[in-house]
Amino acid sequence: MELGLIGLGKMGGNMRERIRQAGHTVVGYDRNPDLADVGSLKELVETLSAPRVVWIMVPAGAPTQSTVDELGDLLSPGDLVIDGGNSRWTDDKRHAEQLAFKGIGFVDAGVSGGVWGLQNGYALMVGGKAEDVAKVQPIFDALKPAGDYGFVHAGSAGAGHFAKMVHNGIEYAMMQAYAEGWELLEAVPEVTDVHEVFRSWKEGTVIRSWLLDLAVNALDDDEHLEALRGYADDSGEGRWTVEAAIDHAVPLPAITASLFARFSSRQEDSPAMKMIAALRNQFGGHAVTD
Amino acid sequence: MELGLIGLGKMGGNMRERIRQAGHTVVGYDRNPDLADVGSLKELVETLSAPRVVWIMVPAGAPTQSTVDELGDLLSPGDLVIDGGNSRWTDDKRHAEQLAFKGIGFVDAGVSGGVWGLQNGYALMVGGKAEDVAKVQPIFDALKPAGDYGFVHAGSAGAGHFAKMVHNGIEYAMMQAYAEGWELLEAVPEVTDVHEVFRSWKEGTVIRSWLLDLAVNALDDDEHLEALRGYADDSGEGRWTVEAAIDHAVPLPAITASLFARFSSRQEDSPAMKMIAALRNQFGGHAVTD
Amino acid sequence: MELGLIGLGKMGGNMRERIRQAGHTVVGYDRNPDLADVGSLKELVETLSAPRVVWIMVPAGAPTQSTVDELGDLLSPGDLVIDGGNSRWTDDKRHAEQLAFKGIGFVDAGVSGGVWGLQNGYALMVGGKAEDVAKVQPIFDALKPAGDYGFVHAGSAGAGHFAKMVHNGIEYAMMQAYAEGWELLEAVPEVTDVHEVFRSWKEGTVIRSWLLDLAVNALDDDEHLEALRGYADDSGEGRWTVEAAIDHAVPLPAITASLFARFSSRQEDSPAMKMIAALRNQFGGHAVTD
Amino acid sequence: MELGLIGLGKMGGNMRERIRQAGHTVVGYDRNPDLADVGSLKELVETLSAPRVVWIMVPAGAPTQSTVDELGDLLSPGDLVIDGGNSRWTDDKRHAEQLAFKGIGFVDAGVSGGVWGLQNGYALMVGGKAEDVAKVQPIFDALKPAGDYGFVHAGSAGAGHFAKMVHNGIEYAMMQAYAEGWELLEAVPEVTDVHEVFRSWKEGTVIRSWLLDLAVNALDDDEHLEALRGYADDSGEGRWTVEAAIDHAVPLPAITASLFARFSSRQEDSPAMKMIAALRNQFGGHAVTD
Repeated sequence: MELGLIGLGKMGGNMRERIRQAGHTVVGYDRNPDLADVGSLKELVETLSAPRVVWIMVPAGAPTQSTVDELGDLLSPGDLVIDGGNSRWTDDKRHAEQLAFKGIGFVDAGVSGGVWGLQNGYALMVGGKAEDVAKVQPIFDALKPAGDYGFVHAGSAGAGHFAKMVHNGIEYAMMQAYAEGWELLEAVPEVTDVHEVFRSWKEGTVIRSWLLDLAVNALDDDEHLEALRGYADDSGEGRWTVEAAIDHAVPLPAITASLFARFSSRQEDSPAMKMIAALRNQFGGHAVTD
Repeated sequence: MELGLIGLGKMGGNMRERIRQAGHTVVGYDRNPDLADVGSLKELVETLSAPRVVWIMVPAGAPTQSTVDELGDLLSPGDLVIDGGNSRWTDDKRHAEQLAFKGIGFVDAGVSGGVWGLQNGYALMVGGKAEDVAKVQPIFDALKPAGDYGFVHAGSAGAGHFAKMVHNGIEYAMMQAYAEGWELLEAVPEVTDVHEVFRSWKEGTVIRSWLLDLAVNALDDDEHLEALRGYADDSGEGRWTVEAAIDHAVPLPAITASLFARFSSRQEDSPAMKMIAALRNQFGGHAVTD
Repeated sequence: MELGLIGLGKMGGNMRERIRQAGHTVVGYDRNPDLADVGSLKELVETLSAPRVVWIMVPAGAPTQSTVDELGDLLSPGDLVIDGGNSRWTDDKRHAEQLAFKGIGFVDAGVSGGVWGLQNGYALMVGGKAEDVAKVQPIFDALKPAGDYGFVHAGSAGAGHFAKMVHNGIEYAMMQAYAEGWELLEAVPEVTDVHEVFRSWKEGTVIRSWLLDLAVNALDDDEHLEALRGYADDSGEGRWTVEAAIDHAVPLPAITASLFARFSSRQEDSPAMKMIAALRNQFGGHAVTD
Repeated sequence: MELGLIGLGKMGGNMRERIRQAGHTVVGYDRNPDLADVGSLKELVETLSAPRVVWIMVPAGAPTQSTVDELGDLLSPGDLVIDGGNSRWTDDKRHAEQLAFKGIGFVDAGVSGGVWGLQNGYALMVGGKAEDVAKVQPIFDALKPAGDYGFVHAGSAGAGHFAKMVHNGIEYAMMQAYAEGWELLEAVPEVTDVHEVFRSWKEGTVIRSWLLDLAVNALDDDEHLEALRGYADDSGEGRWTVEAAIDHAVPLPAITASLFARFSSRQEDSPAMKMIAALRNQFGGHAVTD
């Protein structure tokens, strides 16, 4: 089938390649003319035959919003837009309604896979109406990994990004789990080879996983991670996960602890702990009495 | 080689079988005569040729302690004891010293594998002196999974149980990660098929793991886990992990949150939250002002 | 001075009384005609002499929004609106701009005090322009406690509700601190009189506080809190505190733990812990091996 | 009455003074002869008339243990020992039994008060048999604050130190509550005077407390705490509180979060967060996909 693809960065570019390898036609647009197949969104839309299917793969927030706005003007009733970027799931409903008002369909797709995606496929979590999802299914089949898994129609508009967001929240806490265990093992002199302990866990254990494999790879390169700073960004989806939990009164202690650990990792010094130190100073003689 | 094995319950019995399948001789003892090859510890020791290797596979605490005590009396210098039970790692050093005093070697082995161990092998994390570990290596090779991984000599006495303990701490937080994600997905109406979301994650995602496979199995049986109560025991090793962290001033927020979630799950009602309710009552008019 | 007061519930009614006791004129409006001095917002506005000062004391969200909207239509340039309800601080900026567009001033006021407020005064945290705050100062002085403290001009529009919101976040964690301590004391048989332990802390300790006094009052009534369920609502401000922290990448582990404890307290059964139980079942033989 | 007092450091020296001001006789011993009234423990015991009452005020652990051991040899049946140091409550039972074996009574006393104790009195939480507590009551009355509160006989041996330990656990979480709130207030530009916000809370609020007063004092000296590092020691009692909670399967999320925040504050860099950073590096292209 024929697909318009907007945003040809690291992710989008590889996705175009993988979709083409599956025999589909992809017309790509990017602000960077070196990457693009066409010179404008307008040209992209004109190049595609109706009913058109256009996949947005640009940063979440304003860039996605303006692309949805433009497509709303350019596309025709019966066309379909997929947002495959990292949009917040609460944006999807708004986009779906905005486009539905013009007779244009909408599907949101959470995409996992990163640098391995081109070769191994991208896990896809999608939301939207069944008939809209069906229209894109050949593309989803081209992008997903080869096996039985890696694709789900999770629910209505927003459900795809919601599922991907929760995936990332789980990822935060799993990474934190390994990280805490690693720190503790490194802290005791009796355990002399933490690197090999991690490697041994790759088979026969309850905690074997792809993330564990990555951890072993990292320790292969730098056994005590001496070249790294304990500094971790967060991508937004961890925050949204906690906010969604708060909205639904769902307790998420481990995922939230993982998010807060990242916040703390980025502080030169902790303001809160300054206050703790200040209070301890106020006690005076706290060595004996606090 | 020849091995004495004490404790032939579900774990020990399967281990005897797997070791025998590898061509070794196992003389097993259990308090239950239906399971045992010999009638007493004394008979077990007499049956083995010196230098003897005896593997203890009984519950941690008093049963292991009394077995170590008895073996200390029965064995001879040059013999070797392995504790493969779930002993607390702090017990190992004491046992190693107690037996070393009589010229008997000691190795601690954390064993993972459960009901799949007989078929797939047991992951082994061991601690002790290199020469002692070497003496048992054929048995370790028989027990471990077939591939490149699943065995590590982690360090000195106690390091094996320490590594296994941390494995379990990590396991607690990984389980909690999936559990929190599942609860959040179930909480939003937009996501209509959480079961399939989980299944889709088995390929192409960052969070694919053996635990995820188990979660999918569980949801295959009972999509909304309606037959289960939200009640979880803890096995001791999660507690020890947190205590070891406290001893070494290592922060473990996600693992500890996972342990506390289990504690809470076993309370009919939360005493702490009664106090919160009481304080809110004291405020009076708290709907407006607290 | 003269004040219009909208919302004469438990809080608003007592505030009207306290302001009048200080010699000011209060014209009160409430949807409930039994409480109101005037029959409509329009009548309230007509009764007041310009420049008018009108204090809104209605529930946050839609009721406050519609009151601000109506006042925007009814008031004149130079008039001033105070929102003393529990509005989210992010609403304040919008209200300030909406009213500024019509030349009407805006001050937000976080109000603490509850049922003791009439007698002891209300702690006030306000945000807005200095000249607007100055116009209401006589009312603030009437409402605040008699001593040196209990009033602050915290910053620009929204800062009052923000400070009050953080006050409540701190309150959550302080209540949780006492609650956790109480539960632990009740758990050990050696401590035979937890009630008296709490009472003794009222003097000479680091943790003496008004909340401790309330806890002692509660235990005076019901030593083991047997008449209460461990169930605690949350008022919104705890959630907003955590959300504001996430927006600013500030780690709030204790406050968030306190919020999550309330969420958990309201669950009949924990879905997350069902998943933990399910995973443990999948292990099989977990008593020995997980 | 007559009291032997061992340990005349900052705490013990002030306590001697306060007890003497109440008209009692105190014979003090310290390893530092400049502080001591007698030259040895033996001389202290000989100076006192039977039945003797001896208060130990030395560091917890080995110093307290050796003092208990020595007193066990020097004292006579009918004498009484009080441990007023920061001993772990689990030591008390052992000490009580050790001394009971020789007919010597034992009372444990958790003491709060620090540098203000001499003037304002010391809050006392004691454990032991009622008849033993009664023998020391005049000393307790001399030490405690003047009002109705500040003393409790909490239960059997160990209950005093247990209650004091929980007091400190609560203190940790209360300090953390204020510290988190302070950090959040400092993080938003709309709040321009956090110092005054804290000061305003001293009256009319739910969170007024002695710790709040200390926080205001600290901010009076250094409005943004710029002279301090965010570094906080912990005194042992926070750790013991969490360990006691684990022993009794009591969830303590806020207190534990407070302890872990202190651990983190002392790390130059977080090993766990190095692992998080390493895993994120392994993802590659994580800006788009993790």
